[in-house]
Amino acid sequence: MRFNVLLDVRRIACHLHRSFQTMRFVQFEEGGRRRVGVEKEDGGDVVDLSAFDKNIPTDMRSFLEGGQPMIQAAKSAVESGNSSLILKRDSVKLLAPVTNPDKVLCVGMNYVDHCAEQNQPVPKEPVLFSKFPSTIIASGDDLQYPEETQELDWEVEMVIVIGKGGKKISENEAMSHVFGYTVAHDVSARDWQMRRNGGQYLVGKSMDCFCPLGPAIVMKEDLSDPHNLGLRCRVNGVTKQDSNTKNLVFKTESIIAFVSRLFTLKAGDIILTGTPPGVGCFRKPPEYLKRGDVVEVEVDQIGKVVNKVV
Amino acid sequence: MRFNVLLDVRRIACHLHRSFQTMRFVQFEEGGRRRVGVEKEDGGDVVDLSAFDKNIPTDMRSFLEGGQPMIQAAKSAVESGNSSLILKRDSVKLLAPVTNPDKVLCVGMNYVDHCAEQNQPVPKEPVLFSKFPSTIIASGDDLQYPEETQELDWEVEMVIVIGKGGKKISENEAMSHVFGYTVAHDVSARDWQMRRNGGQYLVGKSMDCFCPLGPAIVMKEDLSDPHNLGLRCRVNGVTKQDSNTKNLVFKTESIIAFVSRLFTLKAGDIILTGTPPGVGCFRKPPEYLKRGDVVEVEVDQIGKVVNKVV
Repeated sequence: MRFNVLLDVRRIACHLHRSFQTMRFVQFEEGGRRRVGVEKEDGGDVVDLSAFDKNIPTDMRSFLEGGQPMIQAAKSAVESGNSSLILKRDSVKLLAPVTNPDKVLCVGMNYVDHCAEQNQPVPKEPVLFSKFPSTIIASGDDLQYPEETQELDWEVEMVIVIGKGGKKISENEAMSHVFGYTVAHDVSARDWQMRRNGGQYLVGKSMDCFCPLGPAIVMKEDLSDPHNLGLRCRVNGVTKQDSNTKNLVFKTESIIAFVSRLFTLKAGDIILTGTPPGVGCFRKPPEYLKRGDVVEVEVDQIGKVVNKVV
Repeated sequence: MRFNVLLDVRRIACHLHRSFQTMRFVQFEEGGRRRVGVEKEDGGDVVDLSAFDKNIPTDMRSFLEGGQPMIQAAKSAVESGNSSLILKRDSVKLLAPVTNPDKVLCVGMNYVDHCAEQNQPVPKEPVLFSKFPSTIIASGDDLQYPEETQELDWEVEMVIVIGKGGKKISENEAMSHVFGYTVAHDVSARDWQMRRNGGQYLVGKSMDCFCPLGPAIVMKEDLSDPHNLGLRCRVNGVTKQDSNTKNLVFKTESIIAFVSRLFTLKAGDIILTGTPPGVGCFRKPPEYLKRGDVVEVEVDQIGKVVNKVV
């Protein structure tokens, strides 16, 4: 009996510790000012980090550039239990969790079955393209349908967020450079991606609003396994993509090792890891987004990004 | 006699006025701090703008976001003639004139004769690709030869610097969105650009140090005609490219109109307008850069960017 009580207490303590430790980093706006915060839970109230310590930067990139001392300060803020730091969720607007990275890197053809739906062989090394940082919008923002495309398509992706920058990072060292993970909708204008701009993806991937991102960055320590998470995309509630990050061809470690041979990674850089099958352009017949559609992209344990096409 | 003297005085006054008005905007570092300044002449002393007015931002992107009031403040600083604002050239290090743009946009195949040397038709619309902002280095910085390429190549380019951002800008309005022009070396790893990464240029164009930029931004008003300027590239003093911006297929107005249909332009964005013939990879036999080479890229009335490959 005593033993059982002890076990229960331990279980509760462990649970409390766990929920305490789950760090969901966000950028938010309140009173017209952007700051960095920690969500108490997905969709919950927000701990205002710069109210805890004025030295904590008000944008995520600078926060991440601050490294471990900043992360430690964030933990102290959350653990302080100081209720004056907590902002009610309905009093803040969540922004995308990073808005000014040096790089928005994207890995193409990185799910085995997505390659199959295109009748393409699985690539021997990651295929890389990019988006401009200004394509980033938040969950809940309108996704403006660009006048220049007739083939607007969806893609759910898990996103690596770089904490510590570096060059020539080994696979063994790679995870120590990852701060956490978030979710992106890699919006694509297929006409421009596939049939215009001389074959270069840039235009088809970088129109305004083409990188809905969020809702939060979950620290890698708080995910059971980033390479075994369900992810899906729904359009108007209908599931269009439904897979698992265990199907990634190149996983975090090999992506970071490959990419950092080519470019110096910086704190705040984001890497969209690729999309599973089920995109609109390879459906028979093809399906594209239209004004009024609501797109949800979701990765388990991280969250959901929802945008209406207007 | 009197009449001649009057003419001479006018000529001198006009000359003084002209040299006074030539605004060469730079970013520089002195005492470990970055600021925005105006060069008195190419290679001359630097007027420290934030010493004139603390409200003038210390980075060029923020300065340009400030719009006309900032440009007016810069003119006032220069015209004040206050010698305490002037820093001797050898006391400062010039940085690249923009270091954190949202976009480093590049136009491919934009000189008629460069298309001819590739046996390619002149494109009907601009072909766009990009570099990461972190590829930008200054004139005088070492150009680190990347381990991952065996085919490092040169390209001189004139660069448009966006002052006022915007979307769907007409050709008629385009020049009002241009702050000025500068010079870039669009360094390329041809093996990666042409034969790897699934045909996407990104990797071959975005390795570290692949965007030497500078030395200054010359305001558009101070150029005789941006579309009639000699430009050239020399490797170890030997001229490899020698052309004129009048040979551009798409000029400033049509580039801005085209690009702003696709993306919202932001203050500080830079657009590399393309390179004339004479690049290494289309020479017979092909020539590539090697460690120790010194590359100079130059546009008349703007200046020269010089980097050593190490």
